[in-house]
Amino acid sequence: MAYRPYEGQAMPRTDLAIEVSEFLRARDARAIPGLEVDERKLNAVTVTRVDVTSPATAAVVGKPPGCYITIDAPGLVDNDRVLQQEVSETLAEELGGLMPPRANAVTLVTGLGNWHATPDSLGPRVVGQLLITRHLQDYVPPELRGRLRPVCAVAPGVLGLTGIETGEILKGIVDRVRPEVVIAIDALAARNVERIMTTIQLSDTGIHPGSGVGNRRLGITSETLGVPVLAIGVPTVVHASTIASDVVDELLDRFRGELRFCEIVAQMDRMDRQRLIREALGDGSGDLVVTPKEIDSMVRQVSRVLAGGLNLALHPGIDEDDILQYLQ
Amino acid sequence: MAYRPYEGQAMPRTDLAIEVSEFLRARDARAIPGLEVDERKLNAVTVTRVDVTSPATAAVVGKPPGCYITIDAPGLVDNDRVLQQEVSETLAEELGGLMPPRANAVTLVTGLGNWHATPDSLGPRVVGQLLITRHLQDYVPPELRGRLRPVCAVAPGVLGLTGIETGEILKGIVDRVRPEVVIAIDALAARNVERIMTTIQLSDTGIHPGSGVGNRRLGITSETLGVPVLAIGVPTVVHASTIASDVVDELLDRFRGELRFCEIVAQMDRMDRQRLIREALGDGSGDLVVTPKEIDSMVRQVSRVLAGGLNLALHPGIDEDDILQYLQ
Amino acid sequence: MAYRPYEGQAMPRTDLAIEVSEFLRARDARAIPGLEVDERKLNAVTVTRVDVTSPATAAVVGKPPGCYITIDAPGLVDNDRVLQQEVSETLAEELGGLMPPRANAVTLVTGLGNWHATPDSLGPRVVGQLLITRHLQDYVPPELRGRLRPVCAVAPGVLGLTGIETGEILKGIVDRVRPEVVIAIDALAARNVERIMTTIQLSDTGIHPGSGVGNRRLGITSETLGVPVLAIGVPTVVHASTIASDVVDELLDRFRGELRFCEIVAQMDRMDRQRLIREALGDGSGDLVVTPKEIDSMVRQVSRVLAGGLNLALHPGIDEDDILQYLQ
Amino acid sequence: MAYRPYEGQAMPRTDLAIEVSEFLRARDARAIPGLEVDERKLNAVTVTRVDVTSPATAAVVGKPPGCYITIDAPGLVDNDRVLQQEVSETLAEELGGLMPPRANAVTLVTGLGNWHATPDSLGPRVVGQLLITRHLQDYVPPELRGRLRPVCAVAPGVLGLTGIETGEILKGIVDRVRPEVVIAIDALAARNVERIMTTIQLSDTGIHPGSGVGNRRLGITSETLGVPVLAIGVPTVVHASTIASDVVDELLDRFRGELRFCEIVAQMDRMDRQRLIREALGDGSGDLVVTPKEIDSMVRQVSRVLAGGLNLALHPGIDEDDILQYLQ
Repeated sequence: MAYRPYEGQAMPRTDLAIEVSEFLRARDARAIPGLEVDERKLNAVTVTRVDVTSPATAAVVGKPPGCYITIDAPGLVDNDRVLQQEVSETLAEELGGLMPPRANAVTLVTGLGNWHATPDSLGPRVVGQLLITRHLQDYVPPELRGRLRPVCAVAPGVLGLTGIETGEILKGIVDRVRPEVVIAIDALAARNVERIMTTIQLSDTGIHPGSGVGNRRLGITSETLGVPVLAIGVPTVVHASTIASDVVDELLDRFRGELRFCEIVAQMDRMDRQRLIREALGDGSGDLVVTPKEIDSMVRQVSRVLAGGLNLALHPGIDEDDILQYLQ
Repeated sequence: MAYRPYEGQAMPRTDLAIEVSEFLRARDARAIPGLEVDERKLNAVTVTRVDVTSPATAAVVGKPPGCYITIDAPGLVDNDRVLQQEVSETLAEELGGLMPPRANAVTLVTGLGNWHATPDSLGPRVVGQLLITRHLQDYVPPELRGRLRPVCAVAPGVLGLTGIETGEILKGIVDRVRPEVVIAIDALAARNVERIMTTIQLSDTGIHPGSGVGNRRLGITSETLGVPVLAIGVPTVVHASTIASDVVDELLDRFRGELRFCEIVAQMDRMDRQRLIREALGDGSGDLVVTPKEIDSMVRQVSRVLAGGLNLALHPGIDEDDILQYLQ
Repeated sequence: MAYRPYEGQAMPRTDLAIEVSEFLRARDARAIPGLEVDERKLNAVTVTRVDVTSPATAAVVGKPPGCYITIDAPGLVDNDRVLQQEVSETLAEELGGLMPPRANAVTLVTGLGNWHATPDSLGPRVVGQLLITRHLQDYVPPELRGRLRPVCAVAPGVLGLTGIETGEILKGIVDRVRPEVVIAIDALAARNVERIMTTIQLSDTGIHPGSGVGNRRLGITSETLGVPVLAIGVPTVVHASTIASDVVDELLDRFRGELRFCEIVAQMDRMDRQRLIREALGDGSGDLVVTPKEIDSMVRQVSRVLAGGLNLALHPGIDEDDILQYLQ
Repeated sequence: MAYRPYEGQAMPRTDLAIEVSEFLRARDARAIPGLEVDERKLNAVTVTRVDVTSPATAAVVGKPPGCYITIDAPGLVDNDRVLQQEVSETLAEELGGLMPPRANAVTLVTGLGNWHATPDSLGPRVVGQLLITRHLQDYVPPELRGRLRPVCAVAPGVLGLTGIETGEILKGIVDRVRPEVVIAIDALAARNVERIMTTIQLSDTGIHPGSGVGNRRLGITSETLGVPVLAIGVPTVVHASTIASDVVDELLDRFRGELRFCEIVAQMDRMDRQRLIREALGDGSGDLVVTPKEIDSMVRQVSRVLAGGLNLALHPGIDEDDILQYLQ
């Protein structure tokens, strides 16, 4: 899908910094101060790093200052194990760059979202495939010690099922366990359907309120938890209203050369557009999401790739099979 | 959502006869020969019966001749057990009217679709909650016999997982078991998002190729199986392309008074529209579906309602608790 | 099964206070100081209250001082909804007697155990069926307020999957949420197979180390959490070694009249017995459990009964359907 | 566990031919006519082939004439992927020796058992991980054709859930699909707990009534289906009564030197033994099984090993990754 954003168009509703950056660049090709973009093409994978360096830019972008690394692999859910292994390794490498250097630092991984709602189940599924080692430190044979980072993990559930904000639960656990870093895994909403299950976003800014498929109310950040929070997310849905808005853009864009039509469109402000979309999607449109039919299989594949990358990053210099056998 | 269909608009992509009928009536208010519509309002439920009585009308409607009963209950997935019980009873009553009269007729229920893909899992879930009794006939105490219909059920899986067309599997089983009627449960695609998980369609025409979420290639009908096939379906998705098309209609409709705009639009034929939608949705648009975020919980609720209705219809004059205890 | 315990027999390995009490009474019919037993027969349910009132008795019994209420319903997993409703109501009543009186006291329910290991999944399953209301307090309509207790719930997972002791996680959450009472649900090990899925134990002593199917290392008690902890458990397994030991007892008991045999048996001390059992069960005998083949269905039924009882107890004076609708 | 079977002991209750053979050899070391046993030790795996060659021997052994290949790998569920890969390859090789030679022969794999009862879910789980290709034959690129065997698969469910004997369903499907061979996967009951999840039995005799965890009533054999039936099974349980019986044997065996004891034991006939076991296990003893606590994880591991072996055997000369990508 080629974005040809219309001038009056609002900032897209997306959890991906790269989509905001693309949108801004499409509207104005000049470099934006405080927004640095660096793209590297690897084999079948593209890694883009977006740095939001000033609070002013953060306000424009709608994302807090920090580093947003996007790993883009169009064939990620095509059952291609060679590609999936490459993506796991790329994730491990990028994650390694953001992790605290001490090997014996306790890492707490948290899988956000709802195990029982497929598009929101990515985080809990990843957590279920991690090599958990914090409780084994005393039993580890000397030759493994030093190479086996203490990792613990929780999938705290969602507010509707627990009655407790996820941030509260995590704050309580962090206060007891005192990890040096928290890694939060979450399912995201993208703007572009082609990013569903093909893009991994890694950032050092934590999880902010209102993001993710499940729309958390409180943030999960270094401010709230008191330790650095890395966030790893993969878009599993696009909001139906985003799709509808894109269709409007395509249509308006197509006829923008026609003088008189532009006058009509000029009368159509944002409220008008939202009313139109609501009429097309019904009252419950806010809860409608667009997903591929095969989402269950895709979530399984992506969660394996993420877990693979995390296991590599958290236990470097150790063979996964060795760990597996030790864990039995 | 108020449909104000544009004149150039194509027949909507939907598995629901009632949506086709609504579309046709909106385009032309006159009665259509061979299409009889009868609506009854009950408590919180509306029952609409659409009869397609002539082959010519069937060709226009895109549905085979037969009877299509729609049970419409907007609050069906609102955890309202009183309403859900009412819907189960309405379904049982309508189904009873289509069933063979003999109490000892073997009924084979088949749950179509993929257990592991949430929007397509409705059929297998219903089958898992039925009171299965065919194998108990010899053990049934005399006082229950006569009131306990012999019911059997299968969830044959989908072509991608079995390598066998569902119709082939069912034909093989029907040839062995020789039921007097087959009831096929399937997840459907609607045109209108507000029908997702709120509408039950019951018909005596079986399941036709290309319908359902899973897009079966072969039909499951009295022609293919050799016994009457009743179909029960509930829409769990709307195709993303349908949403996109609706947005185009809304937009065009809004500006149709503008003379010059109409000229522009007159140039936009169907191919053009499809190209526009493909640009908005990407290449994989055919596999994108729109669902509510809470689809997992909704599928659970609806499958319970359908199973309740089937159990009531198949074992009339018997208390469900009695059967449950006997089955243990 | 009639227990005719042999004199040399060790205290049985069981999480149920009632089984210890039965064992002690079988060995010596006289009343034991500090152990009060009160039995009431209701319709199809027997409620037995065992009070361990002195530390000395607690040491003999192997259970901490406190109150142990056993609800015994042999037909609990026979799909008998009338009986199951009666058991839910009995549980609600007994639980009500142990709960703090203030209606606006926050209750934290925790489902211990491993969602992915069927016999250990009881706790997480119960939690998934509770009416969670703590986060709704601000939205509750005035007429419900006062009757709707604030309830929250977590299923923290097991040590092997989280790397964190369940007690640590709960302590962290309790420190944030500050509930007035914690209710812990757990799967237990019984001595007698006939108690599997037929007995509910409710106690005010919390969960002690080494109990439960999953063998937690730390306790979950008022000492560790700082608030009262009620425990609700249902046996889902008997250890295979317990079965083996019972068989030995039966055999020895049968021949105990034979003089010479008794001499032989007199030589067989406890170590000998354990070696014999280990030879019959193999090295991994400690991890072998005895369960009914139909355990999956039974766990589903029992978890529904427990959740029903908890919902009744925690939201008294309110109709479950009302809550359900409000929660949607 | 070293078997030292007592003379009065009955034939063990087991689905494994190798356990019967071991039992018979322990009772009488001489070769049994019509029972050929051949053992090969590979790396970490032992392969034993038992041939039952005469009907008379079959009557003694309690297994129909045919070939029973046992793959024994004590560490099979220890998360050791190297060993698991070796077992998959060994299974593929042994299975290859029993398969029809023609590459384009349609193979129907059937996973027997109940998806929702963990110890009985092995078959359906294996089927869910197979590379299904029968429906792709027309789309396969020329370079793959010839190397890609047409494979289809069904998991027909259990009698209690379908109301139809599994054999009836399969007969119906076989009559439509006309495969050249059927491979049936089933969970078995062993005699020795150490064989649970460590032994794979492969035979050319099909599945016989009363075998398996689910106790099917009808056989699934070349006689009933009209095509050769290979059976692959792994013990997931030992009947609790078998454990109890073994304990009795161990105890009696220990004291058999004592003259007077033998006299006592001589009075204890088989009925007596069964009554004793029933007293120790209660009335429902027939439905009690012994399993490892970690059975869920073990079933997942073993099903992956079996599926791996089947995929290798059914699609020889093709890289699994290639197939996976093609299937997407």
